[in-house]
Amino acid sequence: MSYNSFGHLFRVTTWGESHGPAIGCVVDGCPPRLALTEADIQPFLDKRRPGQSAFTTQRKEPDAVRILSGVFEGQTTGTPISLLIENTDQRSRDYGDIAQTYRPGHADLTYDLKYGIRDYRGGGRSSARETACRVAAGAIARRVLGESVRIRGALVQLGPHKIDRTRWDWAEVERNAFFCPDAQSVPVWEEYLAAIRKDGLSIGAVIELVAENVPAGLGAPIYGKLDSDLAAALMSINAVKGVEIGDGFASAALTGVENADPLRMDGSGHIAFGANHAGGILGGISSGQPIVARFAVKPTSSMLTPVPSVTRDGQEKDVITKGRHDPCVGIRAVPVGEAMMACVLADHLLRHRGQVG
Amino acid sequence: MSYNSFGHLFRVTTWGESHGPAIGCVVDGCPPRLALTEADIQPFLDKRRPGQSAFTTQRKEPDAVRILSGVFEGQTTGTPISLLIENTDQRSRDYGDIAQTYRPGHADLTYDLKYGIRDYRGGGRSSARETACRVAAGAIARRVLGESVRIRGALVQLGPHKIDRTRWDWAEVERNAFFCPDAQSVPVWEEYLAAIRKDGLSIGAVIELVAENVPAGLGAPIYGKLDSDLAAALMSINAVKGVEIGDGFASAALTGVENADPLRMDGSGHIAFGANHAGGILGGISSGQPIVARFAVKPTSSMLTPVPSVTRDGQEKDVITKGRHDPCVGIRAVPVGEAMMACVLADHLLRHRGQVG
Amino acid sequence: MSYNSFGHLFRVTTWGESHGPAIGCVVDGCPPRLALTEADIQPFLDKRRPGQSAFTTQRKEPDAVRILSGVFEGQTTGTPISLLIENTDQRSRDYGDIAQTYRPGHADLTYDLKYGIRDYRGGGRSSARETACRVAAGAIARRVLGESVRIRGALVQLGPHKIDRTRWDWAEVERNAFFCPDAQSVPVWEEYLAAIRKDGLSIGAVIELVAENVPAGLGAPIYGKLDSDLAAALMSINAVKGVEIGDGFASAALTGVENADPLRMDGSGHIAFGANHAGGILGGISSGQPIVARFAVKPTSSMLTPVPSVTRDGQEKDVITKGRHDPCVGIRAVPVGEAMMACVLADHLLRHRGQVG
Amino acid sequence: MSYNSFGHLFRVTTWGESHGPAIGCVVDGCPPRLALTEADIQPFLDKRRPGQSAFTTQRKEPDAVRILSGVFEGQTTGTPISLLIENTDQRSRDYGDIAQTYRPGHADLTYDLKYGIRDYRGGGRSSARETACRVAAGAIARRVLGESVRIRGALVQLGPHKIDRTRWDWAEVERNAFFCPDAQSVPVWEEYLAAIRKDGLSIGAVIELVAENVPAGLGAPIYGKLDSDLAAALMSINAVKGVEIGDGFASAALTGVENADPLRMDGSGHIAFGANHAGGILGGISSGQPIVARFAVKPTSSMLTPVPSVTRDGQEKDVITKGRHDPCVGIRAVPVGEAMMACVLADHLLRHRGQVG
Repeated sequence: MSYNSFGHLFRVTTWGESHGPAIGCVVDGCPPRLALTEADIQPFLDKRRPGQSAFTTQRKEPDAVRILSGVFEGQTTGTPISLLIENTDQRSRDYGDIAQTYRPGHADLTYDLKYGIRDYRGGGRSSARETACRVAAGAIARRVLGESVRIRGALVQLGPHKIDRTRWDWAEVERNAFFCPDAQSVPVWEEYLAAIRKDGLSIGAVIELVAENVPAGLGAPIYGKLDSDLAAALMSINAVKGVEIGDGFASAALTGVENADPLRMDGSGHIAFGANHAGGILGGISSGQPIVARFAVKPTSSMLTPVPSVTRDGQEKDVITKGRHDPCVGIRAVPVGEAMMACVLADHLLRHRGQVG
Repeated sequence: MSYNSFGHLFRVTTWGESHGPAIGCVVDGCPPRLALTEADIQPFLDKRRPGQSAFTTQRKEPDAVRILSGVFEGQTTGTPISLLIENTDQRSRDYGDIAQTYRPGHADLTYDLKYGIRDYRGGGRSSARETACRVAAGAIARRVLGESVRIRGALVQLGPHKIDRTRWDWAEVERNAFFCPDAQSVPVWEEYLAAIRKDGLSIGAVIELVAENVPAGLGAPIYGKLDSDLAAALMSINAVKGVEIGDGFASAALTGVENADPLRMDGSGHIAFGANHAGGILGGISSGQPIVARFAVKPTSSMLTPVPSVTRDGQEKDVITKGRHDPCVGIRAVPVGEAMMACVLADHLLRHRGQVG
Repeated sequence: MSYNSFGHLFRVTTWGESHGPAIGCVVDGCPPRLALTEADIQPFLDKRRPGQSAFTTQRKEPDAVRILSGVFEGQTTGTPISLLIENTDQRSRDYGDIAQTYRPGHADLTYDLKYGIRDYRGGGRSSARETACRVAAGAIARRVLGESVRIRGALVQLGPHKIDRTRWDWAEVERNAFFCPDAQSVPVWEEYLAAIRKDGLSIGAVIELVAENVPAGLGAPIYGKLDSDLAAALMSINAVKGVEIGDGFASAALTGVENADPLRMDGSGHIAFGANHAGGILGGISSGQPIVARFAVKPTSSMLTPVPSVTRDGQEKDVITKGRHDPCVGIRAVPVGEAMMACVLADHLLRHRGQVG
Repeated sequence: MSYNSFGHLFRVTTWGESHGPAIGCVVDGCPPRLALTEADIQPFLDKRRPGQSAFTTQRKEPDAVRILSGVFEGQTTGTPISLLIENTDQRSRDYGDIAQTYRPGHADLTYDLKYGIRDYRGGGRSSARETACRVAAGAIARRVLGESVRIRGALVQLGPHKIDRTRWDWAEVERNAFFCPDAQSVPVWEEYLAAIRKDGLSIGAVIELVAENVPAGLGAPIYGKLDSDLAAALMSINAVKGVEIGDGFASAALTGVENADPLRMDGSGHIAFGANHAGGILGGISSGQPIVARFAVKPTSSMLTPVPSVTRDGQEKDVITKGRHDPCVGIRAVPVGEAMMACVLADHLLRHRGQVG
């Protein structure tokens, strides 16, 4: 029941603070004889890496991953895979003046209330820097799932601006700095986010994840449901405040007929679906349809606009966070969400194989 | 990693099928010397019990709970508490004609795809009848949390009809069949739901849960976050498609300033908050503010309107579900949601005490 | 991390007290589509059942098991299997006079020190009656393992009297009241144990377990080793004070050459072993050889001979336990040990399949 | 259920191979605000370190530990503590000639049977080098337990030579290369082990562990028993073939009277024991008496004497292991056993506090 682990048969344990010497993770339970080198992991880290556009933090971290164990002659051995990423650009001085003041919206206060310790170095353990480890683990999870399973994410809402879903184009996601699937939304978002940043503000976002070709039968009733595990995995990402599967909250307003996914036989003797309101999961078990999940990310709490706060010794004091921050942390949450979905699916693939064979 | 258990130090394992001889659960890890009798559990079961209004299933189940172990002379002993509820009104004949056809939106198909078994008796394990066990466990969890912690739920949206939050009255929740906190919404909902039922349809809903006086410090980074565990617990309830904490999905459209919960000192030397957009959880740890969660329930898939489906042997066939069903399962999900929140909080109370003392 | 559960993919949770209304267990994670009825479980319970010879307690319990869930039309469904055994002969009066006095060697004192509760009814949760649930679960585990895997146990030492291993005959185990594989030891043990009982004493024993045809590859480094899990499982049985694998403690006195299990090729292209000092496990993983484990059971602490003790309120008082007790609890531990080995192997079979396929 | 983790609230995950770049571990769940630096851990590693006497392997490893996370300004923060130890003397060439041949008694064959991978570099993951991580974790566990709890180990049998327990002197343990508590056994063992090594042989040993001042109440029925967890922890150490608590296997030959630990009141109102046959644990729960455990270590399988074996491609071939090996791995198992006992006790201390407060 480790606090810093998730998964059961494919199990990930992460460690490390934003401004310590390094961060890393241990991936345990990975099947043996999968081809794996650092080069299989690095591209996913690069996608999440800060400092790549004007719209993310300017902290410069190469995020170069090293495999310290569990791989021999280019193949996984079945033993724990230890991954290490050094912190190279940890300017602790950036945080000196907020060392004694709680940043509203951050975990500063609650960590101190819980542990009685104030690790003021960039949020310490609560920093989103930890998500690099998730992305690295997710790259291994994709190996477990195999080539046929495709997991992709996209930003579908930036602040008040939602995409037009009829213009969805996965290829476009690769072409802009927002992971936005709607080319016409990109200039709108650019202008909007530039203004937000100029005003010393920040903004929230919604990310959508789609996993295709997931085998039917993954997930297990009642407390090992696939959607239950996905919800936990996505809600554990920094700044996430909501998770939904398929039609999600919109389904509350639907009638049973509007929400129905009718079944029929396709031409070749297989069962097909007339719709996917369920998001590919029924009774906690994958149906073979695409698995669709969305999660909402709140606006970055760190910003240049002052917010009333208090100091550790009980004085009232406004807080401005001058560090290098993303005006919209939702953008870099896209590869993180993909990775979490990959890890959950890999775990359930192994669990299903364990019970059912 | 039991599939049918949740929680770590306060751990609940449920078992049983809708139309088997009984359902039940085992609550392990409960602290000793808490006063507990069946009478402490029964009122919560009665709240969830079917057949109490025209708006829920007419299946008649007394849902009388028996304590088989873990309690001696009216006190918990620290050993596992086994609870048993007999099924008395299991009319399997109701389901005879859908034994060979998959009910769209139900878990029939996915259970069969996963296990190769079709337990057609009212959904078998996937029936919402299982949630009675959660409610029973939740009553014990409330004992662990103590009198001061108050956990309440309410229906805040029925189909397209949302409550007016300015009229929120907890006392009203006890007075109507919907657990609705807005007296003026009640007649609207009555009329609407009567029409839905008459039309052979069903409808979704949104439930809000509020836990007050929860101690600060519960929850643990990174994969034991309180909100992450709440999300999993609520998403595991039948028919739930979305979960949010605090402002949830709405926070995606907010700026950092709009979403900020400013801190200040109250008159008596304690830290106070100027708002609760966060829903009482920061960095996965409770802040001492009320914990606020919402979850969306899809419309009941069982209804009298036919939906295209297929049989086990690959024939296309429309399905009408004639059994006794709730036109809106969201209503009876209110006490279930409360129970899940109680169980998660009790577990985290013990976990926090374990690590931090 | 439930206190009353063991196993991971094949997971057993037991509940119930010696003198409560019933005891039972929940077996979660069992693969679907295995044939299972009460008749598959009852014979194993009958083997452990008290009152069958002059050498075990005279408590009369039919130990009739009921399957309450997880089986449909004679097949496992993949959902949790709930088993219930009623207590019918719970004469609480037998224990009235020791309600306030700790029985030395029993868990009375430590349960009270831990929980602050004294459940004096026959040991409550700490009674060996709980082992009936293990035996029932073990019967299901054997189904998971399949017909080819054979798990058998025998008593190899009763007090100071060890069997002559050259006379080992598995058929003899079925023919005597001691599960003794050495026909010539039986009359010696009968005479010895009759004297022990007549003298108001009790005596310890050693049980040996052998599992044949276990596939190679079960068990996982480093903390999921098969021998590590077997040690935990056997040590968790009431009154067990030691566990060994293969040559066990004797191997401490051996040289590497004496302890070696040489490898060679058998005629048909398979690897064969020249000996089995290792007891079928190398590096925590099964080798394909028979798995051999032994465990030592201390003498029953309940006996008619007085032992100095103290009362709950701090008075010194000699204790005589007049209840119905086994003079050698090791005898009935044989089917319990077999069951625990079956459960551990079934769990590892599923775990191995999960990771390696 | 991670394969490479143990413990629940105090949870240790280890990773790394004998001849990879590094080994390490992650300690999760450690309470906050405990003073901790590398200097608190290093002395325990030094005790286990190879190359310190003529009786252990001549591999030279400084085993310098680095803390990478979880400690801030000299105090634990409550977040995961990552420890890293570099491998500096990994002469892979030593193993080149056994790359294709299975070393009898080692895990070479079973790892290959399980994973289909042959990591021939000094045993890879199965090497006893992994135990350095346990020792490091054990040093942190001692911090959790506090100064008052004292955990010590000693070698009580080397091959056929047992110590004379009447001469037991803990101070002597620190003075010789065997962790032997009996000064008169030391020269006997020196002579014996020198001969064993000269003959190209190896030998087994028995280690005894004693934990004093452990609070009563640690451990939990039924499958969280303290002795059950100790058995698993000790059996998981490389080459261990047996574990016993208190009188262990000897108790099988005792009558109930001989085995009884009578209770009495000491002068100051506390309960005292007249003996400690039970080894400080009753019903799986600590009684407040010293906890006594022993474990048997088989002779090193690596030795200069040839043993018949087979190659990966099915050829018969004798194996001589020329690497740098301990003639008696039991010696260096002493600090490893102490560490495992410390980790188990720390975990149970937190678990007990969680449930009972």
